[in-house]
Amino acid sequence: MIDGFSAPTRRQILTAIGKTAGMAALYQAMTALGHAAETQFHGPPNLSGARNGASVIVLGAGLSGMLAAYELTKAGYQVRVLEYQARAGGRNWSLRGGDTYTELGGATQKVGFADGNYLNPGPWRIPHHHRTLLHYCKAFGVALEPFVQFNHNAYVHSTDAFGGKPVRYKAAAADFEGHVAELLAKSINMKALDAQLSKEDRERLLEALRAWGMLDHDMAYVKGLRSSSHRGYERPPGGGVNGAPIPSELLDFHDVLDPQVWSTMSFFMNYEMQTTMFQPVGGMDMIGKGFARQVSQLITHNAKVSKIAQSAEGVTVSYTDIATGTANEAKADWCVCTIPLSVLSQIDTQVSPEMQTAIRAVPYSGQVKIGLEFKRRFWEEDESIYGGISFTNQEIGLVSYPNNHFFQDGPAVLLGAFARDLGAYHLAGMTPEGRIEAALAQGSVIHPQYRKEFTTGASVAWSRVPWTLGCCARWTEESRKQHYQTLVGMDGRIVLAGEHASYVGCWMEGALLSSIDAITRLHKRALEA
Amino acid sequence: MIDGFSAPTRRQILTAIGKTAGMAALYQAMTALGHAAETQFHGPPNLSGARNGASVIVLGAGLSGMLAAYELTKAGYQVRVLEYQARAGGRNWSLRGGDTYTELGGATQKVGFADGNYLNPGPWRIPHHHRTLLHYCKAFGVALEPFVQFNHNAYVHSTDAFGGKPVRYKAAAADFEGHVAELLAKSINMKALDAQLSKEDRERLLEALRAWGMLDHDMAYVKGLRSSSHRGYERPPGGGVNGAPIPSELLDFHDVLDPQVWSTMSFFMNYEMQTTMFQPVGGMDMIGKGFARQVSQLITHNAKVSKIAQSAEGVTVSYTDIATGTANEAKADWCVCTIPLSVLSQIDTQVSPEMQTAIRAVPYSGQVKIGLEFKRRFWEEDESIYGGISFTNQEIGLVSYPNNHFFQDGPAVLLGAFARDLGAYHLAGMTPEGRIEAALAQGSVIHPQYRKEFTTGASVAWSRVPWTLGCCARWTEESRKQHYQTLVGMDGRIVLAGEHASYVGCWMEGALLSSIDAITRLHKRALEA
Repeated sequence: MIDGFSAPTRRQILTAIGKTAGMAALYQAMTALGHAAETQFHGPPNLSGARNGASVIVLGAGLSGMLAAYELTKAGYQVRVLEYQARAGGRNWSLRGGDTYTELGGATQKVGFADGNYLNPGPWRIPHHHRTLLHYCKAFGVALEPFVQFNHNAYVHSTDAFGGKPVRYKAAAADFEGHVAELLAKSINMKALDAQLSKEDRERLLEALRAWGMLDHDMAYVKGLRSSSHRGYERPPGGGVNGAPIPSELLDFHDVLDPQVWSTMSFFMNYEMQTTMFQPVGGMDMIGKGFARQVSQLITHNAKVSKIAQSAEGVTVSYTDIATGTANEAKADWCVCTIPLSVLSQIDTQVSPEMQTAIRAVPYSGQVKIGLEFKRRFWEEDESIYGGISFTNQEIGLVSYPNNHFFQDGPAVLLGAFARDLGAYHLAGMTPEGRIEAALAQGSVIHPQYRKEFTTGASVAWSRVPWTLGCCARWTEESRKQHYQTLVGMDGRIVLAGEHASYVGCWMEGALLSSIDAITRLHKRALEA
Repeated sequence: MIDGFSAPTRRQILTAIGKTAGMAALYQAMTALGHAAETQFHGPPNLSGARNGASVIVLGAGLSGMLAAYELTKAGYQVRVLEYQARAGGRNWSLRGGDTYTELGGATQKVGFADGNYLNPGPWRIPHHHRTLLHYCKAFGVALEPFVQFNHNAYVHSTDAFGGKPVRYKAAAADFEGHVAELLAKSINMKALDAQLSKEDRERLLEALRAWGMLDHDMAYVKGLRSSSHRGYERPPGGGVNGAPIPSELLDFHDVLDPQVWSTMSFFMNYEMQTTMFQPVGGMDMIGKGFARQVSQLITHNAKVSKIAQSAEGVTVSYTDIATGTANEAKADWCVCTIPLSVLSQIDTQVSPEMQTAIRAVPYSGQVKIGLEFKRRFWEEDESIYGGISFTNQEIGLVSYPNNHFFQDGPAVLLGAFARDLGAYHLAGMTPEGRIEAALAQGSVIHPQYRKEFTTGASVAWSRVPWTLGCCARWTEESRKQHYQTLVGMDGRIVLAGEHASYVGCWMEGALLSSIDAITRLHKRALEA
């Protein structure tokens, strides 16, 4: 848990330090207390004392909108949420058997997954340092289970290396490390680095390279039981008479330098991608449902916002009930707008010209996800792959194996594509059937069992999702400089929130941290007003 | 699952190839079918047709003994198991609140853990490629859950580096990789490796090093957002106005070369230690209990074997009922002896002089494990560590965090020591209370919360375990050469089995593979006899 029995004392100390001595002192104190700075979350915002009758209208019932509604209600505001969809949760979403989904362009999919199986089209994994999300999952009773992100036994596949055949991550990574170690040891022994390193550090480094890179007594990375103990064996150790292991052949060094190898190795060292990760038990939308349980009575669904106006007195939002076609207005003192910029930029919004420009300045990415259901878990049964990700340079990008119900009989859904950029653009242009066929064709290169075991699939091309018109905001260093502070600043009585108003873009954590920051400032302004 | 619906067909093909064309062809075929050789397990032994009335006595009701009893009974043998302890499972063992354990020397511990908490003194994790164990867990209804072995956010601690303070694995590993990449790139650019590598491969390698090592445009590993995206931030990305991340300082390079850093990095690349790993839900002894459910009616408990004799006609085992002191004899046609060599070497056993020598040739290791219960999961709440292992060069060796009930309130048990070699020898010489104190003192260096949050602890020093006199067999390359084939060979009517009769020493998988190999040969011999 996040809010431990004795945590408040520690947090109170840190908050006091932060308030009196500023952020630098706070981080110093955290480090002294054994903390690394894991997060910008330091507990729920703890707002209170809203002016009597003060009201807020929240646009969007995704995580940032629902969190704003929850915390502002606790602070004493009259809150109302307008949501375009009939469902709360936004991009926090799971598709299950029986669900129907119609994308832009009109293609409709009736999802045919077996009971208990699902595809998470949006977020699908939670880093251990996304403490805001972890806090509210616990607070709202959302059970989490490990998401096996990193699996040494999954594949690396490149059409340009290893004869186009998938190789195990462990073999590719071990060979990369082994060769790097051997080459650096050679350079040291050739005295190429005498100017760079002290004699003592050269010796320390050689010892390190020998052990880390599994070099032999001649400082060479060669076929043998030593390299096999990292990269895997031709025949692994066993029992009884034939128990002795047989070493495996090394991969070709030229191929080991393929971008798929080092990009995969680097990926797993990425801060956001590091172990331990989690997922909700039962599908990602358990989080959206957990949030919705807190605020469902505040939400008006099927509300299509057409105009956001403000004056010195308050905010007026015009919207249409898309079920009945009725035009309506909602009024409040303040507005937290969590509508994705891709949609907001098409709504008549009464904000400053700078804010208008900022809203239009950030393009949205268009990832494509494809869920494939198979009759059995052949990746577990035939290939000893339990969770994790196989990466490929084909358009599908990856194959990610389910992290629930390991060892179970019967049909299971894997993520058969998480395409980005050109691959996503290409797949989004296909029919849903065409996407499944592409995922099967490309996935078969990694798993020949695909065609025989396939039952049904579903896909979501985010550029065609009617209520977001994209997956998430794609800031650049340049657009951050020009527009970020404008975008997150209060514009009269309106403040934006969502992953787009954060540096943790495309993650639920960004949406929540943005929301906390936005409502904290809104509350302060409201008390000053 | 292991025995998939369509797996038999594939296995039948492979078995047929193996029988007709030998092992080399088999492995080639497996590779062609998309298999790497993950295991020497190719399904249960499928024995049948034992001679009418043929009997086997199995010594020891650990996993190898119980598997032998289970499969030999299925094959048609009359099987009886003699077990020294009142409990089946052997080293597959969990200590829970209410348990009492008396070690050699007489010290007795009454375990005080809260309900649901446990220490696994023996095996505690299952690699994904231990397919024999995974097969029987499924067959015997033992539920498994992920064991989070590798956690980027756990600590590396050395008394000789970083001022004696723990550092996060991600920071140490990122800095090691970054510096290695920078130094190798320098060597390449200084033309030190022109003779080793083609121009094309030098360019490929430079590109790889830049991306894998997070080097900047000048091929340097420096403080900045790029290195921080692997090693962690001073202030991580957040939301709203203060969302921008702040980069972290690099560790001192001399310290990054500390053996604790590279030995930890290498450890996690070890074949046996690679992700994904599992543990039984509810404690490791769920496996022993699962096996025992199959064969409990065959087991005589409290049976202390004093003599194993054989003749042309059969095997006679003399044993004492340690509950009543009664002397007994058991007779059978054949004997599978799974008694650890440390104990067997002290029993009068009628085998060849070569086998006698082999039995005495293998010393046993004496690991010490200490379980510590704390009032709350401060490692999760305060430090965002969910499962995984922090390594230290102190005698405790490591701190391993529980992999069940993440986020739960209330007391939890972590593994506060897994000591080996001299550290284990030292800790084994202490009283149980002294061991707890040592674990608290050393663990406090990593987690200052230890003293405040501690409730109770338990320890097992394997050199003092009365029924094994050690943890597991410690083969050397030399002793393998001299004695291994003798030890695993049939000696008249007796065959040995257990982890000591395998190349997967200290692992349950080795015990099971050894058992399958032993009983397969015993069955063949019995049919020929």
